Order: sequence, then structure tokens, then C-alpha cells
Amino acid sequence: MATMELTKVLRFSAAHRLMSPALSRVENRRLYGACVRGHGHNYALEATVRGVVDADGMVMDAAALEQAMQTVVDLVDHRDLSRDVPALAGTVTTGENLVATFYRMIDRALPPGRLVRVAVVETENNRFEYEATGEAP
Amino acid sequence: MATMELTKVLRFSAAHRLMSPALSRVENRRLYGACVRGHGHNYALEATVRGVVDADGMVMDAAALEQAMQTVVDLVDHRDLSRDVPALAGTVTTGENLVATFYRMIDRALPPGRLVRVAVVETENNRFEYEATGEAP
Amino acid sequence: MATMELTKVLRFSAAHRLMSPALSRVENRRLYGACVRGHGHNYALEATVRGVVDADGMVMDAAALEQAMQTVVDLVDHRDLSRDVPALAGTVTTGENLVATFYRMIDRALPPGRLVRVAVVETENNRFEYEATGEAP
Amino acid sequence: MATMELTKVLRFSAAHRLMSPALSRVENRRLYGACVRGHGHNYALEATVRGVVDADGMVMDAAALEQAMQTVVDLVDHRDLSRDVPALAGTVTTGENLVATFYRMIDRALPPGRLVRVAVVETENNRFEYEATGEAP
Amino acid sequence: MATMELTKVLRFSAAHRLMSPALSRVENRRLYGACVRGHGHNYALEATVRGVVDADGMVMDAAALEQAMQTVVDLVDHRDLSRDVPALAGTVTTGENLVATFYRMIDRALPPGRLVRVAVVETENNRFEYEATGEAP
Amino acid sequence: MATMELTKVLRFSAAHRLMSPALSRVENRRLYGACVRGHGHNYALEATVRGVVDADGMVMDAAALEQAMQTVVDLVDHRDLSRDVPALAGTVTTGENLVATFYRMIDRALPPGRLVRVAVVETENNRFEYEATGEAP
Repeated sequence: MATMELTKVLRFSAAHRLMSPALSRVENRRLYGACVRGHGHNYALEATVRGVVDADGMVMDAAALEQAMQTVVDLVDHRDLSRDVPALAGTVTTGENLVATFYRMIDRALPPGRLVRVAVVETENNRFEYEATGEAP
Repeated sequence: MATMELTKVLRFSAAHRLMSPALSRVENRRLYGACVRGHGHNYALEATVRGVVDADGMVMDAAALEQAMQTVVDLVDHRDLSRDVPALAGTVTTGENLVATFYRMIDRALPPGRLVRVAVVETENNRFEYEATGEAP
Repeated sequence: MATMELTKVLRFSAAHRLMSPALSRVENRRLYGACVRGHGHNYALEATVRGVVDADGMVMDAAALEQAMQTVVDLVDHRDLSRDVPALAGTVTTGENLVATFYRMIDRALPPGRLVRVAVVETENNRFEYEATGEAP
Repeated sequence: MATMELTKVLRFSAAHRLMSPALSRVENRRLYGACVRGHGHNYALEATVRGVVDADGMVMDAAALEQAMQTVVDLVDHRDLSRDVPALAGTVTTGENLVATFYRMIDRALPPGRLVRVAVVETENNRFEYEATGEAP
Repeated sequence: MATMELTKVLRFSAAHRLMSPALSRVENRRLYGACVRGHGHNYALEATVRGVVDADGMVMDAAALEQAMQTVVDLVDHRDLSRDVPALAGTVTTGENLVATFYRMIDRALPPGRLVRVAVVETENNRFEYEATGEAP
Repeated sequence: MATMELTKVLRFSAAHRLMSPALSRVENRRLYGACVRGHGHNYALEATVRGVVDADGMVMDAAALEQAMQTVVDLVDHRDLSRDVPALAGTVTTGENLVATFYRMIDRALPPGRLVRVAVVETENNRFEYEATGEAP
């Protein structure tokens, strides 16, 4: 009985800026650098499920995983993450915070215990990843 | 003493279709979607070995790993995986089942305990991965 | 007045084999090599239109170009090009013949004179391209 | 005497939205689709120069080309192209308009007649390209 | 409290050759194959840190990670790794040995316990990776 | 009768350095920058042929094109281009000079008039390309 992982990748294009309301303009600039200015990315969203391969040769229905991810993409694609996405309101849109939010959304849409990892890739040089540890991110 | 991983990647182009003889046409279509039709991919096969770095600066002879993987590629490259590959006869050629089969073939060709992970990448959006857990997949 | 080009890329996964009914098995094998066997690819379809940039800042409506290309993709995605696509019946499915067929289909769906180039990319090592010269391919 | 082309690529991340002040909200939405909303991309900027290979084996000083391109990138990287870039004020930030603007800026910074082509790649599926024709874009 | 990973990637171009002074010419050739000859790569250097996401939404200051990696890149970029880099003197420049050296250099430049993984990618087909195990590589 | 282009891509890994014997050390350094030091790349070699599509659906025998390119790759792969390749002796190994040399070698190995373009890609940010104009490069 093989324990296998399936990873799917979806892409979206969004704007964001890093600015914390708890910090002064100078502190924001020192902390987040050029990212305090409005800019954007072609993001990749990767989600991984794990499980035993069933009689149909699958870890889980890949269409169900894609649907759970697409729900996230529909909320963020061609949006400004720092202004126009209610699920991210009050969140500084760092890659880390995006991953945590997306993990919770995808996890809720899947059978318990299947989702093991979510990653957000901002550019080919920046990757953020959360791996399940038994507690919510 | 460093414990290190080496991953090699080989590529092949193959046709396949997902259709289980145990299921009706309607059930196959519901389960596998458009994949019930004959289609194909440029696949990537990734294999990872782990070990202590020896005096020559290597985890293991990379040529031996490549040779073990090439044996698999020679069986599947420019083939229809669902009809023309004896090693896959009777197997629904999902990514999960391909990984399990390829893992066993590569593992047998290497010294025991060296192979730790095999992945099959169907498209840039679909990745299947098996990680060794002490039992055969 | 700028003359500009816009290129869009769509992807599809398909099976094919190269075998000419006009040739013997031996001749086919000598001519097409391993491609006489059923195999497949993740193809990219690229189409380029050219024109003057209009007052809206566009060469042409990108959605119209995408729609014309999608019509092609709907016919070939998750299909066996050598057996299941009526538009390719009687055609040896070389990259060259695919490009010529796809060019004619996309060109018919666009305003006259806008399409200037179509390419089919079989693998990262094989690219086929047709550039308009005033006569149909 | 070889006539050769050299192409350099630089990357930047920026936000933008497509909205023409000359059009109503409904017309903008119909024309530009989801791009009327603020979003962003990891852009690639490609510039090509052509010339005879000199005694040093170069078409032109690659550092000079890179410097001319970097001047553009410094203006647009980590910016909102539709609000924060004076050189783009009053311009709908379609790929076509970006290319035309960037072409003029790079061309002015190079010896006359060397720049032959500039491309802006928005995503792996959208490419905009201007090729010199003897007149300014 | 999420435990998150951040991975950054930097690139450099370097020459190297694999030749052990402890071995004869014939033995080197048998062991390292064509790599005994001087050649080179566009390398990617990947470094991953892990931690709890802080109030600013970050695992750690990404600029500090990049600075630690840049120190390595400054030593090796546009160099011959087998002759011109003091930090690698006496080391056969296999991917495994490069990773071990780079891991120690980056680890020393970061707060203790944050660095968890370093990878060196030689080509799209060869990847070397060291994951922290509590002892130095 | 379609006129079509076929492009094949092969890859090789090589070392090089840019240093002209006609120049002083200071002049070399000013002209070629960091490239005066020994370094290396994963190069891509692209060659394009053009022609009418024949009855077999091909512009030309793709295996013949690949063989002509492989002859070049065999001379340069896992070599130091600036020291170990007789065909490049006396040549400063800029991308421009590499393309010119490779073009002549591939052109000689093909039927006259078929080769129309050769490119050498040093990194994802540097591309050198020669297009046939009726005279040798």
C-alpha cells in the first residue's frame, strides 16, 4: 500500500503592497523595503495532498483538489490583494500570510487530513511554503 | 559527515489513457474525465538518492543512478503506456501508479536503501511523488 | 503609429504517431524513427497577430485571438491526433503539418491579414513555425 | 562580416490596471475584461540590438545595453504602472503601450540605429513585441 | 502559530572540473567521466529558512537571508571553482561538496537554527541538496 | 505549399573566459568586465532550417539537423572553450563569435540554403543570434 503525494499548481496575477497599519511610514519602509510600494506578481499556488493509492490508482480525486484551489484563485486573480480581497482584510500580504490563509481555505474544502502542504511562489526567486504539522497555520 | 541528497531528472514522451477494465464507460468517464481519451505528455522522471558524502565527494555514482533511470525511460519513451509497455500491463496509468512502478524498478537496480524518492511530472501543473517509508510502494 | 505584434500561448496534451499510409512499415520506421510508435506531448500553440495600436492601446482584441486559438485546442486537447481528430484525418501529424492546419483554422477565425505567425512546440527541443507570406500554408 | 543580434532580458514586478478615462465603466469592463481591476505581473523586458561584430567579438557593449534597460526597470520595478510612473501618465498600460514607451526610452539611450526590437512579456502566455521599421513607435 | 519556510534563489555562472589529487588520471577519468575536463554551469543556489511567522508576517527578514547568500555568490560568481576560490581550496568541486561548503557559510551568517536546507542546481537535470539534521555538514 | 521553419535545441556545459591577446590586462578588464575571469555556462544551441514541407510532412529530416548540431556539441560539451577547442583557437569566445563559428559548422553539414538561423543562449538573460543573409558570417 503506497503512500503517495499529488501536487497541483494553479497560477494567478495579482497586485499587492506590504504595509502594516501598526507601523510608521519609516518603519514600514525599513522593514519591507521596495515592497511598500504597490506592485504585483504572477503567483503560483501549489497544493499537495497525501494518501494511500486507491483501487482507481489515485490518491484522491484530482478534480476535487483543483476545485478547492480554484475557489482561492477566483478570489485573488486579477485583484489587489492588499485592498480588494475580503478574506485578506487586515492582513499584511506577505508570502507567509498568503500561504497561511490559502492553506486554511483549501484545507476546509477537502476531507480532513488530506492536505499536507501549500506553497506560494511570488517570483522564480521567492517561495513560501507551509507544511501541515497537525495544528492549523 | 553530511547526509546529502542527489536528484537526477530524465525526460520522456509517451501516450496514455485512463480507463479501468473494472468500470463501465460511464463510470470511467465520471472518474477520469477527459483522461479517458487517448492523449500524451512530455513526462519528467525524477529520482533522489540519499547518503553520506564519500571521500570522492559523492553521495553515490551519479552514472549508476542515471543508468537505473535510463532503463525505465527505455521502456516507456515514445510508447503508449496503456498498451505497449509490458511492465504496466493491467495497470491504470495514473501518475500515482506510474510512480509506484518506476520506484520499484529503480530501487531494484540500486544498492539497498539508497533510493528515497521518485516523482513523475505529467505537466507543469501535475506532480506525483512517492517517498520511501521502509516498505515497498 | 506603431506596428506591433501580440503573441498568445495556449497548451494542450495529445497523443500522436508518425506513420504514412503511402509507405511500408520499414520505410516509415526509417523515416520517422521512434515516432512511428504511439507517444505524446504537452504541446504549446503560439499565435501572433500584427497591427497598428488602436486608441484603446491594443493591436486587436486579445480575447478574440484567444477564442480563435481555443477553438483549435478544444479539437485536439486530450485526443490522439493521429486517430481522433477529423480535421487531421489523412494527415501525417508531423509538427509541420500540425502548424499548417492550425494556421488555416486560426486565420479563418480572425479578420483578414491579422495573423502573421503560428508555432507548435512539441518539446523544449523541437519547434515548428509558419510565417505568413501572403499565401495560405 | 557577420550581422548579429544580441538580446538581453531584465525582469521587474509591477502592478497595473487597464482603464481608459475616455470610456465608461461598462465600456472599460467590456473592452479590458478582468484587467480593469488592479492586478500585477512579473514582467520580462527584452531588448535586441543588431550590428556587425567588431574586433573585440561584440555587436555592442553589452553593459551599455543593460544600462539603458536598467534605466527603464528602475522607473517601473515595484511600482503601480497605472498610477506611480510619470513616463506612463495618461497611458492605458496595455502591453502594447508599455512596449512602445520602453522602446523609445531605450532607443534614446543607445547609439542611433542599433536597437531593433523590444518585447514585454506579461505572463508565459502573453507577449508584446515591437520591431523597428525606421520610424518611431 | 504557523511554522513556515521561506526559500530564496540566487544564480551564478562558474567553471569547475572534478579531479581528485589523491587519484591517478585514469582513476579520475573512470570516477568523474567527462567532468574531469574543465567546463561550467549556470548554477542556482537555493537556501531555505524555517520559523514562526512574526507580527510583521515574516519568517525572517528576507533581505538578511539574501545578504547571507549574496556573500557566497560574490565569492563564486564568474570564477573557476576548482582554482580561484580560496574557500574551496583542496575540495573536489562536486555538487555535494559545494552544498556542504555553502551551507556552512550561509548558516554562520544567520541566527542559529534558522537555516534548514541548501540546494545547488547544476543543470535542470542535476540537483544536490543538504537538509539540516542538527549537526554541521 | 507551405514554407515552414523547424528549430531544434541542444544543450551543453562549458567553461570560457573573455580575454583578447591584442589587449592589455586593464583593457581586457574594462571591455569584458567580470567575464575576463574563468567561468562557465549551461549553453543552449538553437538551429533553424527553412523549406517547403515535403510529401512526408517534413521541412527536412530532423535527425540530419540534430546530427549536424551534435557534431558541434561533441566538440564543446564539458570543455573549456577558451583553451581546449581547436575550432575556436584564436577566437575570443564571446557569444557572437561562438554563434558565427557554430553557424559555419552546421551550415557545412547541411544541404545548401537550408540553415537560416543559429542562436547561442548563455543564460536566461543573454541570447546571441545570427540570421542568414546570403553571405557567410
